[in-house]
Amino acid sequence: MPSQPPAIDSRLLAALQQVVGKKQVATAPEERLSYAYDGSGREYPPAAVVFPANSDQIAAVLRLAGKYRTPVIPRGAGTGMCGGALATRGGIILALSRMTKIVEIDEDNQVAVVQPGVITAELQAAVRRHDLYYPPDPASRAFCTIGGNVACGAGGPAAVKYGVTRDYVLGLTAVLANGDIIHTGVRTAKGVVGYDLTRLLVGSEGTLAVIGEITLRLVPAPAAKQTMLLLCRDLLQATGLVSAILRRLTPATLEYLDRTALGLVADRLPTGLIERSQEQIGQNPAAMLLLELDGSPEEVAGQTRQLKEFLQDQQGVILHAAADHEEAEQLWAARRAVSPAAFKLRPHKISDDVVVPRSRIPDLVATAEQLAAGTGLPIFTFGHAGDGNIHVNIMLDRDNEQERRAAETARQAIYKRVLELRGTLSGEHGVGISKAAAITAEVDPASLELMKNLKKLFDPGNILNPGKIWGEGVRS
Amino acid sequence: MPSQPPAIDSRLLAALQQVVGKKQVATAPEERLSYAYDGSGREYPPAAVVFPANSDQIAAVLRLAGKYRTPVIPRGAGTGMCGGALATRGGIILALSRMTKIVEIDEDNQVAVVQPGVITAELQAAVRRHDLYYPPDPASRAFCTIGGNVACGAGGPAAVKYGVTRDYVLGLTAVLANGDIIHTGVRTAKGVVGYDLTRLLVGSEGTLAVIGEITLRLVPAPAAKQTMLLLCRDLLQATGLVSAILRRLTPATLEYLDRTALGLVADRLPTGLIERSQEQIGQNPAAMLLLELDGSPEEVAGQTRQLKEFLQDQQGVILHAAADHEEAEQLWAARRAVSPAAFKLRPHKISDDVVVPRSRIPDLVATAEQLAAGTGLPIFTFGHAGDGNIHVNIMLDRDNEQERRAAETARQAIYKRVLELRGTLSGEHGVGISKAAAITAEVDPASLELMKNLKKLFDPGNILNPGKIWGEGVRS
Repeated sequence: MPSQPPAIDSRLLAALQQVVGKKQVATAPEERLSYAYDGSGREYPPAAVVFPANSDQIAAVLRLAGKYRTPVIPRGAGTGMCGGALATRGGIILALSRMTKIVEIDEDNQVAVVQPGVITAELQAAVRRHDLYYPPDPASRAFCTIGGNVACGAGGPAAVKYGVTRDYVLGLTAVLANGDIIHTGVRTAKGVVGYDLTRLLVGSEGTLAVIGEITLRLVPAPAAKQTMLLLCRDLLQATGLVSAILRRLTPATLEYLDRTALGLVADRLPTGLIERSQEQIGQNPAAMLLLELDGSPEEVAGQTRQLKEFLQDQQGVILHAAADHEEAEQLWAARRAVSPAAFKLRPHKISDDVVVPRSRIPDLVATAEQLAAGTGLPIFTFGHAGDGNIHVNIMLDRDNEQERRAAETARQAIYKRVLELRGTLSGEHGVGISKAAAITAEVDPASLELMKNLKKLFDPGNILNPGKIWGEGVRS
Repeated sequence: MPSQPPAIDSRLLAALQQVVGKKQVATAPEERLSYAYDGSGREYPPAAVVFPANSDQIAAVLRLAGKYRTPVIPRGAGTGMCGGALATRGGIILALSRMTKIVEIDEDNQVAVVQPGVITAELQAAVRRHDLYYPPDPASRAFCTIGGNVACGAGGPAAVKYGVTRDYVLGLTAVLANGDIIHTGVRTAKGVVGYDLTRLLVGSEGTLAVIGEITLRLVPAPAAKQTMLLLCRDLLQATGLVSAILRRLTPATLEYLDRTALGLVADRLPTGLIERSQEQIGQNPAAMLLLELDGSPEEVAGQTRQLKEFLQDQQGVILHAAADHEEAEQLWAARRAVSPAAFKLRPHKISDDVVVPRSRIPDLVATAEQLAAGTGLPIFTFGHAGDGNIHVNIMLDRDNEQERRAAETARQAIYKRVLELRGTLSGEHGVGISKAAAITAEVDPASLELMKNLKKLFDPGNILNPGKIWGEGVRS
């Protein structure tokens, strides 16, 4: 049960209602509970939920919050996995779900201007109608918002070719803690006037400013696409192939599933594929790669040819090219089914989003397998092999004290190994509250001090998403 | 004549000699004069030139500079156009020319680790031997350093497809003003732990920290390349083609020359081309586009076919595809000859590096032509049309007071127009001292205050490249 939502100061409430309109401030217990959750599965009811319509209203809310020393937690769709959108100290959830306007799609300059509440997939569909493409594709893109993507520095499978959200943000309208509205960046690919406030705000998880409008770079939509699946005899071979493939061509996505992950969804693959693999490589495949080539028809044909030529010399690899769009969708559906299917193994999951240099994936997976053997817990890995971004999943029964302890030990061992391999503890999920302890393990003390001073500079009253990233004083 | 170099405090000198070695501190007047210049053509002799060997020595120099309240001006090769490497207040030039080690080229992960003094073209050649490619290509790449490129956020023609220096910096070792050494960023494409100090330092022109080591992302080297030249009947057509081409394909470079720039180098183009153009379009061409396609052979062939098909329907455009590498080089040599050839027109040049959304290039060029007609000065434009990054060149005789005044008026009018067109006043040359006045025209007051506070946070004693970007108190 959540703790009782703290009451909101009645003068603050009246002032908020005046700023955004009475209907745009929610304080009923059931409304507060609706905004108590995010993708982390934790629950912290806010004192109120406020729905601003524009940057000016955001600014007015922040000024009031400063006056009343009330935390403000900006929130997109609440799909974040690390608790970044939770009202851990009560206060005001600043729900940006009314700011859903696609302000502009500029075909000639391949730029879009959007409000933060636009759903990522809706932007992608809108620009597609202009033959343009917005590549960042977090798994939750059908629900998550661009504002949330920017705030968390979201990634996705397409990063291996196209980069992450950060690489598409040209400029921002942002509201500072004191209510000042700033315009950062440019509408062009180049621009070096002054310090790069744009990228400083990207990934700052609402702790430095609230994003009111976003200028995004777009690219021409690729005309053709080919999805392919590779089944490999062993994992080392699969991860070796990742580096080898990336030296020859640049697929739009390059995903991998380890043995356990593959086992969870093998029944969803095209009929006969696993059997063919058993015949040709003499065993069940130990890993799967899912790869997508895109571009002009010539480009895709050329890359497909190159890939097939290269794989001819590789023993123990089964290549299956999707025959059509439906089969490609089937392959992706299998990939996406890994996460939900994991609960066949245990009722609960600890999932971490780590990154290692891609040539070190085998080392990380070896550690995961050792930990699985040592703890007796199912631990499996899958993810964006092309950029070394691996989702490590530790399955457990939280009601079993011993499993809970073993899982936490395994998690810490994974973190330690990731850092030894010169990786990072959060690739695309952010820090929020669930990784706040990890940040001190990764960031050196002088950088940490600098970052904390940046936070103080931007938000001296500590009203903007307090406790997030930095963890201090957050009940968890 | 330069003003007399201010003397260095003898205790500071002794301490510096102890830190880096006696031979690595230069104080003779002729040595100081050698480091008084940069690409801006201005001259400010430092009190001393110090050549550190590593980040620890940089840290020790900064601690001493703090103690003695002496400015420290980090310097790569001094090719910057805006005076960012000048000792405008005397002090110590921190010459990074001894730190030239390519620490690592990691083929599997497509990452290079380099010291700041590595020459950009030398890094490009070194990674090419591993079939890898470092795309950012400032015109001075044969002389300039990676450290300088990072400090200034340098660009180049390849930006239209590949992006700018900023897009390749994964992480930094940087030395703070107090001598603390920080390690920012990651070795991987993804990473969202803490605030993005890496990109905050990129483009900060040595005012926030000194860069000691750089981790760079690389890409696979393209196997094929095709250079093409387009001659157009009029400029509007040429700039219209830029947007149209970029909606169909992504060339590696897409440069343009206006009528005057083309006239300066027409004699360097392949024989008969201008004549062919006169025949087919009935006049001298009014603009030239230089375009390069790269990628796999199939990709280049496919893009070439697409481009030719598209151009078939365009009246008044001459397409010439370079027959071989030598002819491609000839076309690029003509493009590069524009800047030096400009002095046929007048003895002096004011060159500005502005950016407008590429669909607005015709508007900016129209303004330039009106200003040329109004002032009687030759004003021409050329540059990276693909990303709207235009070099505006005002030719004048500085000894002629009237021309000097007219040129300054024209320059201010160009700035005003760029901002009206929602562009930026520096695309890839930085701010330094020569654009310090322009920054207040472009950046909003709240952002400016924030940036100045960032400077104070990073460098409370104002010893790191003081006056640069912010201009205060710089003799110009």
